[in-house]
Amino acid sequence: MGGDFGPRNIVQASVACLGATPSLQLTLVGQPSLLEELIAGYPAVDRARLTVFPASEVITMDERPSQALRGKPDSSMRVALQLLRDDRVQAVVSAGNTGALMALSRHVLKTLPGIDRPAMVAAIPTQRGYCQLLDLGANVDCSAEHLFQFAVMGSVAAEALGVVRPRVALLNVGTEDIKGNQQVKLAAGLLQQARGLNYIGFIEGDGLYRGEADVVVCDGFVGNILLKSSEGLATMIAERVETLFRRNLASRLVGALALPFLGRLRADLAPARHNGASFLGLQGIVVKSHGSAGVQGLQSAIQRALIEIQENLPERLHGRLGELLP
Amino acid sequence: MGGDFGPRNIVQASVACLGATPSLQLTLVGQPSLLEELIAGYPAVDRARLTVFPASEVITMDERPSQALRGKPDSSMRVALQLLRDDRVQAVVSAGNTGALMALSRHVLKTLPGIDRPAMVAAIPTQRGYCQLLDLGANVDCSAEHLFQFAVMGSVAAEALGVVRPRVALLNVGTEDIKGNQQVKLAAGLLQQARGLNYIGFIEGDGLYRGEADVVVCDGFVGNILLKSSEGLATMIAERVETLFRRNLASRLVGALALPFLGRLRADLAPARHNGASFLGLQGIVVKSHGSAGVQGLQSAIQRALIEIQENLPERLHGRLGELLP
Repeated sequence: MGGDFGPRNIVQASVACLGATPSLQLTLVGQPSLLEELIAGYPAVDRARLTVFPASEVITMDERPSQALRGKPDSSMRVALQLLRDDRVQAVVSAGNTGALMALSRHVLKTLPGIDRPAMVAAIPTQRGYCQLLDLGANVDCSAEHLFQFAVMGSVAAEALGVVRPRVALLNVGTEDIKGNQQVKLAAGLLQQARGLNYIGFIEGDGLYRGEADVVVCDGFVGNILLKSSEGLATMIAERVETLFRRNLASRLVGALALPFLGRLRADLAPARHNGASFLGLQGIVVKSHGSAGVQGLQSAIQRALIEIQENLPERLHGRLGELLP
Repeated sequence: MGGDFGPRNIVQASVACLGATPSLQLTLVGQPSLLEELIAGYPAVDRARLTVFPASEVITMDERPSQALRGKPDSSMRVALQLLRDDRVQAVVSAGNTGALMALSRHVLKTLPGIDRPAMVAAIPTQRGYCQLLDLGANVDCSAEHLFQFAVMGSVAAEALGVVRPRVALLNVGTEDIKGNQQVKLAAGLLQQARGLNYIGFIEGDGLYRGEADVVVCDGFVGNILLKSSEGLATMIAERVETLFRRNLASRLVGALALPFLGRLRADLAPARHNGASFLGLQGIVVKSHGSAGVQGLQSAIQRALIEIQENLPERLHGRLGELLP
């Protein structure tokens, strides 16, 4: 029921994913009459793999996490998470209120042993591929132990996505040992001692985009600001380049060539918006699609959930955490 | 003597600035033989306005601030700051080691009354012009009071640069009151009560690039990471766009049109690298040019120092701080 465009986009993305993954079954959680109406137009062969599960309430985009927790026992978000907890589905994808989704996920699913707080991770494009950046805003204040837990979780997530021996780095204002705040310095000490983790040291903001690491760890305050400022900058650049191309006839001719590329670039540079962000550290798979994600963004989020199911990510995290956490 | 390219670029930029500003007199501080040799090639009319002031030592780019403070009493950086302290020059511009420059500036010049820590500010391009972003890395941990002081200083700096009633915002992970860490929430409380300051509330990373504020305040950890990641992202985008243009003949034709623009865009998006960053809150004007800044970047830094002299920035800051600080 969530997202800035409501369930219509979600249904459309769901049907597209059914086409791409023959073994996929999707459960749409929300107001039955509305959802039934939305899927009615699709072929019977698709509808056979779409189940509507009723939930009478909807958490709005501006609701506080505490409100979502206390009120609305029958919200689509909570009901979906309960289906996951009860093993009736294998992952939850939501385009709704991020804070509410995190609070309800922790409440309904609980965290993995050893994890204080789940983190939000997304793939950020770099000059050499992608890096997993976490936390993206779930935890504004983080201790060194939290940063350490994020590093372990990010490393396992990157492995699950196919990276061999992911290079893990801590985001900092310099690469020398003396640089940074107390939490970051202490976290570096913990990571240096962690066996089985390919910790490569501090990384700066430009190093991230140069692709110097596969996993970049920071607190949610920094991660959120980095992600959103990157989205804002990418949008600004895309608009400036577009303006340039519209300026005269010669450049307008080129524009026809460049504009589709710029669209892709913009999408690529707003990964949380377009590719979905995972919640790591929960006893279950939860992927958050950006509220303003289009159909393609929602498809990417469902795809990410599928990979995490395939790779059994929570189970792998649980195992690795058992080895690495004190 | 500083900067990744040494004094040659600095001398070249100095001479260019003499041409642009007839009243300007420049003092070059450093090893006399080297500097005299570098200026020997320029016309006598320029050399008449260039003074070489001797300093036998050089602080290297990798020296720690504590080393710069304790050792090298005759470093070019320290001597330049002493000339400023003694009113023999009106501003210092350096392309050297940032941490050393900040430590020496505080030590030699002292901070303005009411200011605990100087901040580093630079102009960041936005969709609507520029915003002054501070702190950029001088202070990794900041209390609410520090953020408040930065807001006051940033506002006065924006006014000096011609902005009427600058809109001042606190960088945060959301715009609602409940969002953010403790320091940011407390700083918001202080700013709401400050008369004569056009405080507009919280701003997110994307809002910064949309130009929603003229002054954006954050701690140096966040500011440094935002700035460097933006530089990294801009570089990545510029390279991707260039690659696109090289892909085929049609696009290569357009490339001729677009490449100069992309160069400008890159320069524009790396403002600390290209435009110089000011140290605010000192009893004197200090502008830091990026170590890898080219001649044009150094010129911009000298221009910024000239504006600050014209606007009598430290004096204005002193007056406004007296009104606004408790």
